[in-house]
Amino acid sequence: MGSIELRSDNTAGAAPEILAALAAANTGTDSAYGADAWTQRLRDRVRAVFEHPQAEVFPVLTGTAANAIATAALCPPWGAALCHRSAHLNTNECGAMSLYSGGAQIRGLEGAGYRLTPAALDEAFAATSWGDPHHSQPSVLSLTLPTDGGTLYSAAELTALTQKARERRLRVHLDGARLANALAASGSTPAELTWRAGVEVLSLGATKNGALCADAIVSFDPAVSEQLVYRLKRAGHVASKQRFLSAQLEAYLTDGLWLRLAGRANEAMARLAQGLGRLGVSLEHPPEVNMAFARLAPAVIERLQRADLRFYVLGLELIRLVTSFQTTAADVDEALARFTKSLGL
Amino acid sequence: MGSIELRSDNTAGAAPEILAALAAANTGTDSAYGADAWTQRLRDRVRAVFEHPQAEVFPVLTGTAANAIATAALCPPWGAALCHRSAHLNTNECGAMSLYSGGAQIRGLEGAGYRLTPAALDEAFAATSWGDPHHSQPSVLSLTLPTDGGTLYSAAELTALTQKARERRLRVHLDGARLANALAASGSTPAELTWRAGVEVLSLGATKNGALCADAIVSFDPAVSEQLVYRLKRAGHVASKQRFLSAQLEAYLTDGLWLRLAGRANEAMARLAQGLGRLGVSLEHPPEVNMAFARLAPAVIERLQRADLRFYVLGLELIRLVTSFQTTAADVDEALARFTKSLGL
Amino acid sequence: MGSIELRSDNTAGAAPEILAALAAANTGTDSAYGADAWTQRLRDRVRAVFEHPQAEVFPVLTGTAANAIATAALCPPWGAALCHRSAHLNTNECGAMSLYSGGAQIRGLEGAGYRLTPAALDEAFAATSWGDPHHSQPSVLSLTLPTDGGTLYSAAELTALTQKARERRLRVHLDGARLANALAASGSTPAELTWRAGVEVLSLGATKNGALCADAIVSFDPAVSEQLVYRLKRAGHVASKQRFLSAQLEAYLTDGLWLRLAGRANEAMARLAQGLGRLGVSLEHPPEVNMAFARLAPAVIERLQRADLRFYVLGLELIRLVTSFQTTAADVDEALARFTKSLGL
Amino acid sequence: MGSIELRSDNTAGAAPEILAALAAANTGTDSAYGADAWTQRLRDRVRAVFEHPQAEVFPVLTGTAANAIATAALCPPWGAALCHRSAHLNTNECGAMSLYSGGAQIRGLEGAGYRLTPAALDEAFAATSWGDPHHSQPSVLSLTLPTDGGTLYSAAELTALTQKARERRLRVHLDGARLANALAASGSTPAELTWRAGVEVLSLGATKNGALCADAIVSFDPAVSEQLVYRLKRAGHVASKQRFLSAQLEAYLTDGLWLRLAGRANEAMARLAQGLGRLGVSLEHPPEVNMAFARLAPAVIERLQRADLRFYVLGLELIRLVTSFQTTAADVDEALARFTKSLGL
Repeated sequence: MGSIELRSDNTAGAAPEILAALAAANTGTDSAYGADAWTQRLRDRVRAVFEHPQAEVFPVLTGTAANAIATAALCPPWGAALCHRSAHLNTNECGAMSLYSGGAQIRGLEGAGYRLTPAALDEAFAATSWGDPHHSQPSVLSLTLPTDGGTLYSAAELTALTQKARERRLRVHLDGARLANALAASGSTPAELTWRAGVEVLSLGATKNGALCADAIVSFDPAVSEQLVYRLKRAGHVASKQRFLSAQLEAYLTDGLWLRLAGRANEAMARLAQGLGRLGVSLEHPPEVNMAFARLAPAVIERLQRADLRFYVLGLELIRLVTSFQTTAADVDEALARFTKSLGL
Repeated sequence: MGSIELRSDNTAGAAPEILAALAAANTGTDSAYGADAWTQRLRDRVRAVFEHPQAEVFPVLTGTAANAIATAALCPPWGAALCHRSAHLNTNECGAMSLYSGGAQIRGLEGAGYRLTPAALDEAFAATSWGDPHHSQPSVLSLTLPTDGGTLYSAAELTALTQKARERRLRVHLDGARLANALAASGSTPAELTWRAGVEVLSLGATKNGALCADAIVSFDPAVSEQLVYRLKRAGHVASKQRFLSAQLEAYLTDGLWLRLAGRANEAMARLAQGLGRLGVSLEHPPEVNMAFARLAPAVIERLQRADLRFYVLGLELIRLVTSFQTTAADVDEALARFTKSLGL
Repeated sequence: MGSIELRSDNTAGAAPEILAALAAANTGTDSAYGADAWTQRLRDRVRAVFEHPQAEVFPVLTGTAANAIATAALCPPWGAALCHRSAHLNTNECGAMSLYSGGAQIRGLEGAGYRLTPAALDEAFAATSWGDPHHSQPSVLSLTLPTDGGTLYSAAELTALTQKARERRLRVHLDGARLANALAASGSTPAELTWRAGVEVLSLGATKNGALCADAIVSFDPAVSEQLVYRLKRAGHVASKQRFLSAQLEAYLTDGLWLRLAGRANEAMARLAQGLGRLGVSLEHPPEVNMAFARLAPAVIERLQRADLRFYVLGLELIRLVTSFQTTAADVDEALARFTKSLGL
Repeated sequence: MGSIELRSDNTAGAAPEILAALAAANTGTDSAYGADAWTQRLRDRVRAVFEHPQAEVFPVLTGTAANAIATAALCPPWGAALCHRSAHLNTNECGAMSLYSGGAQIRGLEGAGYRLTPAALDEAFAATSWGDPHHSQPSVLSLTLPTDGGTLYSAAELTALTQKARERRLRVHLDGARLANALAASGSTPAELTWRAGVEVLSLGATKNGALCADAIVSFDPAVSEQLVYRLKRAGHVASKQRFLSAQLEAYLTDGLWLRLAGRANEAMARLAQGLGRLGVSLEHPPEVNMAFARLAPAVIERLQRADLRFYVLGLELIRLVTSFQTTAADVDEALARFTKSLGL
């Protein structure tokens, strides 16, 4: 069967529906820089899907761009963004937010299960010298849903965190690089997990879930939207033929495609986790979406690698497994067969 | 016939060959962030096409990103980039280069026909307080080929400018958003119009000439390439599924597709200019690639607009006409028919 | 008599009154970072002198810091500051404003006599693509009083300019590096030439007029003041023993010292200009404060230099002459004697 | 006796010798922006005192400016500066280093006694994805001597740390805000605790130890010095009448004044610590320079405050005590008397 891909959902290809949308967008000419018909329709689609009449959507190339530019729009240069220690913003973006904000700080807070708690915010707030210019002022709370460990916040948990943030006038950003996976897993609506829960600006991922090269910032605050128009242009994130990004996102959000794709990834992971459970493999926590962390002996890890199972090794005895919309039941069963063999069962 | 599109080459769609390459790239999974096979092949292709064994290529979303990040990599924060007053870097990027460089200045110099001359550089250099920290230090020369007015530099002219730059230790960037049009028009090789003429880093455009959403930085200097790896990541310009950008660029540079597409745009403009000449329309200068500037009475401009001819109005009596790889001979003839009518001939 | 100093007012020493204030401030201990008694008194003094109950004053080391940080507080990163081409901000600060603003642009406008006019602003506004993110948006008007050429705006002229700015929602900064000279020359009050004329933030110079090392930002807008607290700290412009800066500024603004010192400099220049007029030397314009530009044959310039008259040479036949509070009538007369000799009269 | 000042050495006034140097510098006129005779002599003095013929010295207003601009000159925008968690750079400068570096990160590492160890660096290095553009690259090691807790590194300890840094090509900065206190306490020479131990750029404090408003960057690397000329100007940290900063620093470094002043502060602390020991007060660690941290019951802290003893309260039961060059034996004895009373002894 060849290799089984479980490294990351960004190693997957594109969903056929999205590729078809690209081809369909290639008709005639249209205005550049977002004044095209696809981008207009995308905006309407976002407003409908998120049930928010003032939402604005800004297609960008990457989730890093979305996170960094969105949080920079919420944070003065002397501010700090608070996020979980494991947040992509903190660990994987090479300080992009500091670049775009003119030098703001990024503070990773601790929290079990990759999740922040109101208590963790209380602690961070208590340690802050508010109003003292010697100290960067916490100005943004950046949450991640699902978290970078594949765990979830409920709408109520999100709300508790954003209310806490608002007490200290922090603005709220949500990194939704895999938001569709959270929606598919929880059954919550897009509105419930975003602006109704206090989120003001959202990084909406599509690339990990079937798009070719399109993520977006969705802003629920018109004043922030106005800023983003300029911030994105001077970052070089306003595509001249923007319709080819908007067409991907429009297809993604139409007729529930994003939820179907994410559902497939989640189901593949559920099947995998169930199988691993049967094999006695210890998972860090039960997977809530499409990601799992397994503890394995180094020798087993090595045998799995030789068996052409692809995954990321995070530590001596820890690996990460991620499924995508492309992962089939057959892929999972084959993966489990290789696990069985590698475990010597 | 409907509208005739002459606003800009970025209102065009995608070349079928490039769309096909995207579809072809959608097979199986591959490594993220540029470690994929398409990006590897693109690098080899760039090295072959530009005849430079150390060239590195970095796909990005836009020409603005390419220009701003490339020049920032060549310029200290206290430096200044010199370019023609009409350069996109100076007029249309909302200060992107200042963002990415940490506050460097952009200086637009005058020059007839949208072209810089060694004499203009001499003048700028003479007006500079070299080594005086009260003054931003010219550090980068950014040339544009074809210029933003659609004129050309010969390889010898480029070389004269870059040698002048090097006397004062300025680094040299070339904005090649439409480089293919210059190559197709001049018959020069990619090497002749870039590194052999003293260019160190190139913004290589593809989007205006048939790609969907892919431009690139091509660096001929390994030390700059090393920087760009980091600069691009923290700018959010490293696509996670980079193969879908690389596949566009690979197809673009393969078997001369880029030159064929640009050749069509150039030929359409030549046909248009010839026709306009017959109609007695005054062009600012004979078009060398796919762009012309026509002087017309305001009433004529209005009639053309009502006739659904699309173009940019730059002044009371000045319009810009741009053809693309999609512009057919029939489009041009129909445009000329509408000109004839609007001119009351 | 030795050398006669006419290079710049910043080559002068300190006024004895200010040195005495420093010594007087050296008693016991006091709180750091501006929480000291001198800084409190300075604030009260500024409010009284400028007749503005909400004015805040922030001592800084240099006029460059005051200009760059004040304008950065008024300008978004995608904005542009408009000023006269000759403004210090534009010509002599190595892009400091771009650093502190996160990459905003500085645009020097033309204007006779070093002065901007409402018409020049109209022209700049007409050339602006308002609301178009491809273009930096004019966001700050930075005026200089006296100008860098030593000319003045009346209160009415300032008001006309700031009203024009406000029509387009530009914020207004005044570079008052030599504000005292303008006050002494015009008889206007500090309020009349600042906030009553529409100025929102002021760079208040003292160093060129008798202080050792103290300029200040004076903010008439509480929202800007709140920002400046942080902007200054992270720029390293909040002195730990701030009382030693505040004491200089307090003495400067007390009992009209600043006006007396500036009056001396202005009078010395008036005497010099009158004398030069008698000698037939052509001045660029009649000096309004303490600065003059004289046109002289190169050979005369050389003879003056050999006669140990110190001044800046700005061009082949143009020199700048600046008097300070230290320039005595005897200095002026001796300078005139050397002019007489050098002119061969 | 009134209040006893033990809050910080920056609440002290100026040393009479330094005030006298200021008065002495106020003679005639001199060139602006560091081209004056005092700055020249300061450079010679620094070269002699540090035994380094290429050292350059740049007077600045504050230690924050010195730290932030010096480290920014050593760090690319995508880099990170490593320092102890307690370092002023990390805790008290409002992200100044991120501003000046264009968005570099600051990482506070743990270490007992406020000190970093080679093992802590090893751990930080092991946790780094070297060469991976998703992660900020450690580029600078910033050490503090004495540390922000008043502890010392020996020359050998410094050397071990800087060698470790150099293995990974990190540049080395030393925050010497209180360097004189370390020199006075250790008997080491300035060279031994700086460049001979591998330090490339030094923040040299003077303000906390008798200057009015003058710290400096001392660079031992000519390439860095060349950058600093521009970095400082555009930060607004090049005083126009620089002689008044240089004169303070020249006096400070002449005839051992800095060591005598620091010696007094150290001795006052030694006397205080000895006395507190006799009273049974528990100190966090034996003071090595002029700073101590005492654990006291909240009621005692309150009584001390009411007794007009001034100090910083760092926690419920923790206070910081700092002596300065102005603290006399009588001050210490009076402080001890108030301790005795407050402790109810």
